[in-house]
Amino acid sequence: MTLIKLPLGFRYAGVACGIKPSGKPDLSLVVADDPVVAAGVYTQNQVVAAPVVWCRNRTPSSSIRAVVTNSGNANACTGDQGDSNAAEMCELSAKLVGCRDDDVLVMSTGVIGQQLPMERVRSGIEKAASKLGRQSEHFDASADAILTTDVARKCIVENRELDGETAAIAAMAKGAGMVAPNMATMLACITTDVKIEPELAAKILKRVAEASFNRVSVDGHTSTNDTMLLLASGKSNVEIHDGNLEAFESWLSDICLKLAIELVVDGEGASHVMHIQVDGANDHAQATAIARAVGESPLVKTAIAGGDPNWGRIVSAAGNANSKVEPRFTSLQVAGTELYRAGVPTDFDVSQVSKAMRAERVIKLKLTVGEGEGVAEHWASDLTVDYVKFNSEYTT
Amino acid sequence: MTLIKLPLGFRYAGVACGIKPSGKPDLSLVVADDPVVAAGVYTQNQVVAAPVVWCRNRTPSSSIRAVVTNSGNANACTGDQGDSNAAEMCELSAKLVGCRDDDVLVMSTGVIGQQLPMERVRSGIEKAASKLGRQSEHFDASADAILTTDVARKCIVENRELDGETAAIAAMAKGAGMVAPNMATMLACITTDVKIEPELAAKILKRVAEASFNRVSVDGHTSTNDTMLLLASGKSNVEIHDGNLEAFESWLSDICLKLAIELVVDGEGASHVMHIQVDGANDHAQATAIARAVGESPLVKTAIAGGDPNWGRIVSAAGNANSKVEPRFTSLQVAGTELYRAGVPTDFDVSQVSKAMRAERVIKLKLTVGEGEGVAEHWASDLTVDYVKFNSEYTT
Repeated sequence: MTLIKLPLGFRYAGVACGIKPSGKPDLSLVVADDPVVAAGVYTQNQVVAAPVVWCRNRTPSSSIRAVVTNSGNANACTGDQGDSNAAEMCELSAKLVGCRDDDVLVMSTGVIGQQLPMERVRSGIEKAASKLGRQSEHFDASADAILTTDVARKCIVENRELDGETAAIAAMAKGAGMVAPNMATMLACITTDVKIEPELAAKILKRVAEASFNRVSVDGHTSTNDTMLLLASGKSNVEIHDGNLEAFESWLSDICLKLAIELVVDGEGASHVMHIQVDGANDHAQATAIARAVGESPLVKTAIAGGDPNWGRIVSAAGNANSKVEPRFTSLQVAGTELYRAGVPTDFDVSQVSKAMRAERVIKLKLTVGEGEGVAEHWASDLTVDYVKFNSEYTT
Repeated sequence: MTLIKLPLGFRYAGVACGIKPSGKPDLSLVVADDPVVAAGVYTQNQVVAAPVVWCRNRTPSSSIRAVVTNSGNANACTGDQGDSNAAEMCELSAKLVGCRDDDVLVMSTGVIGQQLPMERVRSGIEKAASKLGRQSEHFDASADAILTTDVARKCIVENRELDGETAAIAAMAKGAGMVAPNMATMLACITTDVKIEPELAAKILKRVAEASFNRVSVDGHTSTNDTMLLLASGKSNVEIHDGNLEAFESWLSDICLKLAIELVVDGEGASHVMHIQVDGANDHAQATAIARAVGESPLVKTAIAGGDPNWGRIVSAAGNANSKVEPRFTSLQVAGTELYRAGVPTDFDVSQVSKAMRAERVIKLKLTVGEGEGVAEHWASDLTVDYVKFNSEYTT
């Protein structure tokens, strides 16, 4: 058995400090041995939490030393006090790590509109700083402490040869706007030991987000806190340059897409996942818009939940995306059966397709919308009675 | 009691001809005594039903004689055969009315992807033509025959003085993309006896649609068949000119908005309606985008269904609309209570607000997002367990 190594140059910790009433882990610390390159991609929501404002102003950077994350409280819609609290989290972490406040990044996720219980947060940061380590148990503890309503831990550690040398990526994530963006922000923190320039890291990370987390949806609602951070220590012998850039980027995309799909699969109340493949669109942007429109249509989502091969909803959702759909070239396969061919419904066996849909956890929808070159893929959850029940009474 | 008069110059009929398995009325005919002005507003969906293609090519017009509508079958995604069937419906109606095929308009609503049962449709058109009349019972029968899953008939007849003369508007509508656009297209047919130029009628109708049917949403899914027609006979003594244009347009908007709100209230599975008022946006377009984003967010919809004053979801849905939201000027009232003021949550009584929400059928959400001039209103249904149950197993 080959031992998979964590990226060189980082220590991790995760502890419980009482922010969550459940007593589950809620404070995570990632600390770099030396200043590292960091880049971030942030929510497009106009209402932005205090930690997002802090990070946006400090990335890309080549001098980051730590990322402190709390779960259980989003520190969003908390005004000036929220800004001070985010700053204090960085200040305290900086003191313990021995660096400038500005070289610490911060993420928060949880309930919106309540001030952080700072006494607990402070004790949590101190406790985490005393437990930092380089083993997978430390990394796992750190990954656990960023979860909220997630059912399972979401992390991937991989090693790969680039230019004949071994590099490592360790990524952790948590559920995204899945059932409730005020409790389930998408957060991701990725550490790697490759050497990369900050501007290049920022450029790659933006494309990676587009190819991974932006290709999944649960309820089409981006949160106030969504944050994805990449930290690169440069402690391996791998340096990212023109020759290996594509290999590194596709590796990173691959890891992030796997995590993104886990977010959808793990969505509370979700019984099935749609894997939507669109081709024949005018271009990639239009294909993406169509795939997303299908994945976010409540009518499609409920049909998928019910194992109902209601192709009319899928075709009309596609037509609803402000992108070119040519009915006479439009075809649709659901779970391997063609339901609609070149603008005309096929004579398919409804009960057989329905049975196939119910039998699969991931249901493939393959939609051709014309003769163009544009293709895209998207993953989305279905819409179940459990989703509505879970979301109908949440704060009360 | 003042008798409300139907517009002069029209006859109506509605009959059952067996398109619907239930045996309910499914064929409606509106016939003008002489050629009338007609304008239409149609779905923006890229996948467009055969009758929509027919009407788009023939409006605005000053020579329309009839509108034939069937319910129970949308004649959408039906290829060349669907086009011929729509044409044949107009041809047969034209023969019975005594006009050119091109002077008949056609609407269809119901199941997608099945060919019309033309034998039944033909007998229905003949039967309807033999039952035409000018009384409210004829108008009501016509309005009933365009319904599908609607719970109640949706029509409004009003008389008003313009320039000292009496004019009439009679509008009928049916449910829109409410629970299933493949069974519940939005159709509206409005007759009036004012005299108006075709181009002006088209211009007004577009604005009226924007101010009425485009301000409501159930699942944010426009159908393949959505059609709104206005027929003006000119048989009253009222002519629309610069001086009374605004009065006529606001009257028509008013009638259409009332019908539009009825569509939301009547949505199957809807327990509450949100009346969303946005102010302080940069402009009307941004205010509209924000109001719509709130109304279409599944997280907001489920919170409303559960009587949950989860203001974080509403504020973050607003921030999700690609329109300027300034958190420090953002305030929110739900059912009369301020939950969020200038970017900070208020100390409100959750159980009291929840009680107020549950007690009301229409729940008012008043959201200020900045200091701009942009205001907008929007109405939307909530998202209930019944909606999901109804939509999960529809064709199977």
